[in-house]
Amino acid sequence: MTKDRLIYLPLGGAGEIGMNAYVYGYGAPGKERLILVDLGVTFPDMDTAPGVEVIMPDISWLEERADRLEAIFITHAHEDHIGALGLLWPKLKKPVYARRFTATIGRLKLEEEGLPVDMLTTVEARPATVEAGPFRVQYVPVSHSIPESAALIIDTPAGRIVHSGDFKIDRSPVVGEPWDDALWAAVAAEKPVKALMCDSTNVFSTHEGRSEATLAGPLTELISKAPGMFVATTFGSNVARLKTLAEAARAADRTICVLGRSMKRMLSVSDETGVLQGFPRVVSPDEALEVPRRNLMLLVTGSQGERRAASAALSRGKYLGFEMREGDSFLFSSRTIPGNERGVIRIWNAYSEMGVTVHDDEGGLYHVSGHANRPDLEHFHRTILPDMLVPMHGEHRHLAEHVRVATEAGIAAQVAVNGTMLDLSGEVPVVAEYVETGRLYLDGTALIGALDGVVRDRIRMALNGLVTVILDENDQPMGEPWVELMGLTDKGKGGRLLNETMEADLADYLERAGRKVLKNDDKLDEEIRKVVRQIAMEEIGKKPEVTVVVSRLVAE
Amino acid sequence: MTKDRLIYLPLGGAGEIGMNAYVYGYGAPGKERLILVDLGVTFPDMDTAPGVEVIMPDISWLEERADRLEAIFITHAHEDHIGALGLLWPKLKKPVYARRFTATIGRLKLEEEGLPVDMLTTVEARPATVEAGPFRVQYVPVSHSIPESAALIIDTPAGRIVHSGDFKIDRSPVVGEPWDDALWAAVAAEKPVKALMCDSTNVFSTHEGRSEATLAGPLTELISKAPGMFVATTFGSNVARLKTLAEAARAADRTICVLGRSMKRMLSVSDETGVLQGFPRVVSPDEALEVPRRNLMLLVTGSQGERRAASAALSRGKYLGFEMREGDSFLFSSRTIPGNERGVIRIWNAYSEMGVTVHDDEGGLYHVSGHANRPDLEHFHRTILPDMLVPMHGEHRHLAEHVRVATEAGIAAQVAVNGTMLDLSGEVPVVAEYVETGRLYLDGTALIGALDGVVRDRIRMALNGLVTVILDENDQPMGEPWVELMGLTDKGKGGRLLNETMEADLADYLERAGRKVLKNDDKLDEEIRKVVRQIAMEEIGKKPEVTVVVSRLVAE
Repeated sequence: MTKDRLIYLPLGGAGEIGMNAYVYGYGAPGKERLILVDLGVTFPDMDTAPGVEVIMPDISWLEERADRLEAIFITHAHEDHIGALGLLWPKLKKPVYARRFTATIGRLKLEEEGLPVDMLTTVEARPATVEAGPFRVQYVPVSHSIPESAALIIDTPAGRIVHSGDFKIDRSPVVGEPWDDALWAAVAAEKPVKALMCDSTNVFSTHEGRSEATLAGPLTELISKAPGMFVATTFGSNVARLKTLAEAARAADRTICVLGRSMKRMLSVSDETGVLQGFPRVVSPDEALEVPRRNLMLLVTGSQGERRAASAALSRGKYLGFEMREGDSFLFSSRTIPGNERGVIRIWNAYSEMGVTVHDDEGGLYHVSGHANRPDLEHFHRTILPDMLVPMHGEHRHLAEHVRVATEAGIAAQVAVNGTMLDLSGEVPVVAEYVETGRLYLDGTALIGALDGVVRDRIRMALNGLVTVILDENDQPMGEPWVELMGLTDKGKGGRLLNETMEADLADYLERAGRKVLKNDDKLDEEIRKVVRQIAMEEIGKKPEVTVVVSRLVAE
Repeated sequence: MTKDRLIYLPLGGAGEIGMNAYVYGYGAPGKERLILVDLGVTFPDMDTAPGVEVIMPDISWLEERADRLEAIFITHAHEDHIGALGLLWPKLKKPVYARRFTATIGRLKLEEEGLPVDMLTTVEARPATVEAGPFRVQYVPVSHSIPESAALIIDTPAGRIVHSGDFKIDRSPVVGEPWDDALWAAVAAEKPVKALMCDSTNVFSTHEGRSEATLAGPLTELISKAPGMFVATTFGSNVARLKTLAEAARAADRTICVLGRSMKRMLSVSDETGVLQGFPRVVSPDEALEVPRRNLMLLVTGSQGERRAASAALSRGKYLGFEMREGDSFLFSSRTIPGNERGVIRIWNAYSEMGVTVHDDEGGLYHVSGHANRPDLEHFHRTILPDMLVPMHGEHRHLAEHVRVATEAGIAAQVAVNGTMLDLSGEVPVVAEYVETGRLYLDGTALIGALDGVVRDRIRMALNGLVTVILDENDQPMGEPWVELMGLTDKGKGGRLLNETMEADLADYLERAGRKVLKNDDKLDEEIRKVVRQIAMEEIGKKPEVTVVVSRLVAE
């Protein structure tokens, strides 16, 4: 009989920041009972996935083994951890567990997709324990940039695993429990930690992380001194920051108004679940419009420059009756995620044109990260002393650096990117298998594979433009090709119309072409493409995409 | 008779970083004699200009007044200052002036476009003077990140203008003349400076700029300690950096090989024009392949993550016989321009997967900027004490901040973005007129306007996909519509083929449609679009672009 083993398999989140999905398994090889931790999304960009709504991990591997899946555990309510729950749950249909705040967000996601919410169970923090096949799972509160984030203690017959989730070491986090070294020491003392799967986001930040509480002073000063209306943006889910900003506003004798659906939702869920207490009174936009500018503070969505969010809307002009003016201030109490710079800068410049004073985080004065920096990671490693470490939640460079950090401290560590199944049964992590993984796109309401070619065609049309050639076999000979251009200049060399040049040259070609070519759809298609591309290169120096439609006689 | 006036009009570079083009004029209003300073490009991105080669200022205003244009002055050979010379010179056809290094690059650009190179005259540094109508222009060497960068002294009947060009205050620039306070004091003493048009790129950097020479120590240490092959990238035109890197390599007993056409060209022009002396010997790739890795240093193009450059090619695998391996090092001796982060990070992660150690500028240890920081700008203002200051070379936020800095120092300052004509004749700059400006795209070999709709269509196809509907009037009734999909999933709800669903529903529609609609092309087009989009929304939740082709009976 084969020995039982303990496995770890990231399907998303390892080798990228986003769309987290981590599988653990215990049992005989190929028969392991499984659990899934997190089911998140990542966001598309124009370069690689234009027009796509969100990107999710391709969980086919798990779907094919859904009969062995015991449960899904969600660590916190950030989109990159919970965002795919509504979309992918139907492929798995297993019980879901989360803490109260996260569960409330999760239920909203399931409801949006018309799914039953009773499969989602609210879990209390440790010592409460969920049993899922061979796994016993506890939620340990940690600080992050959203309420009720949690690390998981996953006890298995092969030993204890700590799955850090997203965390920082914050001893005064404004909202939620402060970091507790004693608690973590107790976790390690209770049972040795076999493996730590650990957040790697900030492994390149070499200074100790700063507490959320350090922001109150600078923010209060900034907001008090500002002469006109004060508008601040941050992630809607960063409820502690919203509280800090709101309290600073109150200290500056400003009335608070919140703009943006996602931020309002987070505040209302925070209120409902009791994670947020003592938040200053918030007024409606209509009430806010009656308040003198000097006494007003808007909290708005759109810290990443998102075109549809409130910060962008305000930068374009009037929004819900509000209009920014010379003397007003705007604060990005946030960090720009790489790739979002252009959008953020666009907003900044638009405000600059209005005479609005813009502040960014100013080197950390008005923003702190929600992830543990390198010294904090090292502190955590030392506190729980795991036998082995597997970095997660990072691009390859973050994972590799985290392995270096752990190795230097004498901990056996291994990079495992998406699809790398590790066997954790022994003394050190060992690669057991490589599993095919990938990305799923939500495109409109359709789920499509990243490699289906759909998005590739869109990118090609964007780069090269499109020529559609229509041939009608009813014409005899096929001498009247029709050319439509999309995304191409209509004039070629010497000002001639490009489609007419193509039509004339194609007509010539068709007249010369042999009967054999004309009768063979594939061959005809290929030849016409070639002719069109050659003309385009001569006329406009581009090789466009070409679609050929041959309308043959319909046999009715 | 109307009084003569002195005007300034940015056509590019003010309100953006890139495609610099600044017009000065002197004379009776509407009859000013003109000069143009710089004629640069900017680079497209997928979000706003997919498939475009380069972006240039729309210089129609100047083209229409080319009879009044005396000359074109190029300050230095960076693409954002000289890149459009070959493409736009035919619209102006006026004498061009530049220092030796810049002129050599300029001639190559003119040659590439098959233009005469004898219109380009090499200018010596001040006191040499070019007379151009009412203007007397001198080139003053300044430090920047390319050889022979220059500020211009533009003497006019209305007073002296200093056009800073791109500059930094560097007293040990490795290549070229050190910053010389005495020289600038002399410029101001000789004749009061009426207006300073000043580089604004680094106005948000609050620390004093650092000299190129500070890099030699850290780079030598880094390169000496590296165990395997060492590969470094920087801008190909940053010849001083290449020299610093090469000398560090030589000190570390490494042979140097250069990969990348643009870098090789810059080195050869530097050599040819005598700006670079004592550059260590460079070997060919074939020779380099014989050198032990520990003794090899590659200097490669692609510091901004460009897909076609050497750094990206090496990150994808074998390139010209070279292959990166575990233990090798890669250095970005550069800063990532906002918007290029994803490309740079992609390369970093690819190297990380190969086990290559990657270094970025590490907070300035391995890279210094070529632009003056705020304290340096203030120092320059104080040195030449202009009556007025007009910030250039910056986004709106940079220009506005630079105005604040100058105003605090008691200098009359004014933001003037592209198209803002300033009258500089009086005590303070006054807005005289707003001129229509814009962007030209080089798309393949065609010049198209940014607002022509061509690129807009490409973006729409990328976001929404495309449905082409072909109707043939030869069919009676027009009941056999043909639907082609591009960039759209082929399956709708319940797995039905999307094009077949559309064809069936369109056939139904056409059967129901009145004769009036069928006979009216515009109406038919509009109705078919509506039907297609409605089906697409129902089936896949997207509103695609729609092209309708009605093939009517051809009257022959």
